[in-house]
Amino acid sequence: PETKLPRVGTTIFTVMSQLAAAHDAVNLGQGFPDFPVPGRLLEALERAMRAGHNQYAPMTGIAPLRHAIAGKLARVYGVEADADAEITVTSGATEAIFDAVHAVVRAGEEVIVLDPAYDCYEPAIELAGARAVHVPLHPRTFAPDWDRVAAAITPATRMVMINSPHNPSGAMLSAADLETLAGLLRDTGIWLLSDEVYEHIVFDGARHESVLRHPELRERAFVVSSFGKTYHCTGWKLGYCVAPPALSEEFRKIHQYNVFCSFAPAQHAFATMLEAEPEHDERLGAFYQAKRDRFREQLLGTRLVPLPVPGGYFQLVDYSAVSELDDAAFCRWLTIEKGVAAIPLSPFYASPPSGQRLARLCFAKNQDTLDAAIERLQGL
Amino acid sequence: PETKLPRVGTTIFTVMSQLAAAHDAVNLGQGFPDFPVPGRLLEALERAMRAGHNQYAPMTGIAPLRHAIAGKLARVYGVEADADAEITVTSGATEAIFDAVHAVVRAGEEVIVLDPAYDCYEPAIELAGARAVHVPLHPRTFAPDWDRVAAAITPATRMVMINSPHNPSGAMLSAADLETLAGLLRDTGIWLLSDEVYEHIVFDGARHESVLRHPELRERAFVVSSFGKTYHCTGWKLGYCVAPPALSEEFRKIHQYNVFCSFAPAQHAFATMLEAEPEHDERLGAFYQAKRDRFREQLLGTRLVPLPVPGGYFQLVDYSAVSELDDAAFCRWLTIEKGVAAIPLSPFYASPPSGQRLARLCFAKNQDTLDAAIERLQGL
Ligand SMILES: CSCCC(=O)C(=O)O
Ligand SMILES: CSCCC(=O)C(=O)O
Repeated sequence: PETKLPRVGTTIFTVMSQLAAAHDAVNLGQGFPDFPVPGRLLEALERAMRAGHNQYAPMTGIAPLRHAIAGKLARVYGVEADADAEITVTSGATEAIFDAVHAVVRAGEEVIVLDPAYDCYEPAIELAGARAVHVPLHPRTFAPDWDRVAAAITPATRMVMINSPHNPSGAMLSAADLETLAGLLRDTGIWLLSDEVYEHIVFDGARHESVLRHPELRERAFVVSSFGKTYHCTGWKLGYCVAPPALSEEFRKIHQYNVFCSFAPAQHAFATMLEAEPEHDERLGAFYQAKRDRFREQLLGTRLVPLPVPGGYFQLVDYSAVSELDDAAFCRWLTIEKGVAAIPLSPFYASPPSGQRLARLCFAKNQDTLDAAIERLQGL
Repeated sequence: PETKLPRVGTTIFTVMSQLAAAHDAVNLGQGFPDFPVPGRLLEALERAMRAGHNQYAPMTGIAPLRHAIAGKLARVYGVEADADAEITVTSGATEAIFDAVHAVVRAGEEVIVLDPAYDCYEPAIELAGARAVHVPLHPRTFAPDWDRVAAAITPATRMVMINSPHNPSGAMLSAADLETLAGLLRDTGIWLLSDEVYEHIVFDGARHESVLRHPELRERAFVVSSFGKTYHCTGWKLGYCVAPPALSEEFRKIHQYNVFCSFAPAQHAFATMLEAEPEHDERLGAFYQAKRDRFREQLLGTRLVPLPVPGGYFQLVDYSAVSELDDAAFCRWLTIEKGVAAIPLSPFYASPPSGQRLARLCFAKNQDTLDAAIERLQGL
């Protein structure tokens, strides 16, 4: 067949994980924890299966989970969400992003994407027949330049995508950012997609400015999150989308005919977990901050220069002192020759900034894993 | 937002399941078993979770599962499939169908659908910007009229969708059907999507004519199946697509950016199950045939007239002797007033045949459930 997505290859995450496995490298590439899922969650899933919750869940997700999510949003963000009309459970955040784009973006329209951007955004846009318009974030702070965003808006713009805490940089949007964005979108027909999968992984007392906290933005937003990052189970592929009723209605039309519903026993397990251990997500920032702090301290003993990490579970490092290779070549070299897999930044860009020498390391790992990586990185 | 799918409402399966719950009806509507998942499968899933298989699976599915599927195809159909290049694990057959359509069908093209058809086909086609061209199956035998299919082919035709054993009728395609279809598609650029989720549920010694058995068709086909129907776990949402390498490559581009990967622990569980208990699928026909036979015998005591059921787990009944209501109204009445939920056939059609008085009953249920339904149906 003639390909519909000529620029799509295998994701960099898969490429680097395979390279890591082939060369027995410590895998700090693809973002996933190597420590266990909370025991209570496993037990709840087992109970759900044993109780026979193995048939189709309702298309929108089981009611107890949607209500538990609404409870979390009230607890964490002080906002109300209608569990029936505004919350839809999805097969991970990736599916939610795909569905949101397909729900409202039409052929010939444009979607503004802030680069570097997670790699599933643009293919979803292309498949909807639309075009991604790339606006670069600041090359060092990864803050949006809202004037450039404003300049990128045309009559064809149908959606803006944001991501905070940001993958790969960890940068976070401020309340002022959201306010500026609200001004830009006011009186337009532009929808917002806010990818907040790292919502609970924020550091140094900072507050995650969920779009749900901004009433005006929220009216035009699909807010997407996931249980994978919060509960150390990226392979369970369960997430959700919060959107106003009219947007949720369109979203569900896509979800209904894309996957219909998601793994039922895990829905029961997360409903149980959210009610039984609400403090889990509240403790997540401190849990990862300790890892981040220790890892950054260890990096001081290497020639890699760590950039600030306000949130998320990735550490960007500048490797200029180590190598003149471009980032793709550097990450391959680091994996194959030095035994540490990292993710280059260029695949996150439509046009990577020239001369940028940054690589992404995932610190969502056991200290043993990080120690093993640091030992190898010290030899650089 | 202006809706992109104006004709999409809530699926009839959800509507009837909700109505059944609201009226405490015996639910023979939505197709799912009410008996347990095999114990060995549950245990395998628990072991996989306890062993820590909770992070992202490879995008294409874990290798042991892809190889186990290849083994099953060799065992059951005597065909070879390349586990790496031809098999992709998906989040259920619905996702696989969505991905296959999006992999090769472009805006402005046409896809031939044989009515009655499962309800996720047309929305996937519409979302790809294409148009479903509906060709009716025979109103009583549900056999395809290949001359009508031939007449429906235009230069814009990009795909034909088939489904055997067929939902809702249970009708099965014969080797001669596949041969005729192969002739129609020869020397065209038309792809085939074959939905074979009921592949192991075939009766009376019949043989399921998988498209995988037909070398010429197989070269242009996405063959889709699912573990949900075979292992009594429709809520686990795990399926797969078998397609030639070039088609699989395009398929995976969609899958990668739609859901990326599927619930990892279940992949390990099915890999274990397929190896440890290969006879499970071989016994499934006899298991369901006993249910079908008993249920049909019981229906003789009612005024509903059962149609033949060559495969699958649905019994169509003609209710002409009971009611003059159209099928949607009849099924609502049956659910609300008589306490048995059934699925009307008209939602499976673009243009339902006028005067057709058929309803679909699912017999994938415990005998107690079927007995309770029959007791209520006797009073009609
Ligand atoms: C779906 S694999 C990528 C996982 C991830 O979120 C990342 O590494 O950025
Ligand atoms: C996804 S709900 C529908 C289940 C099913 O296959 C059917 O009832 O036909």
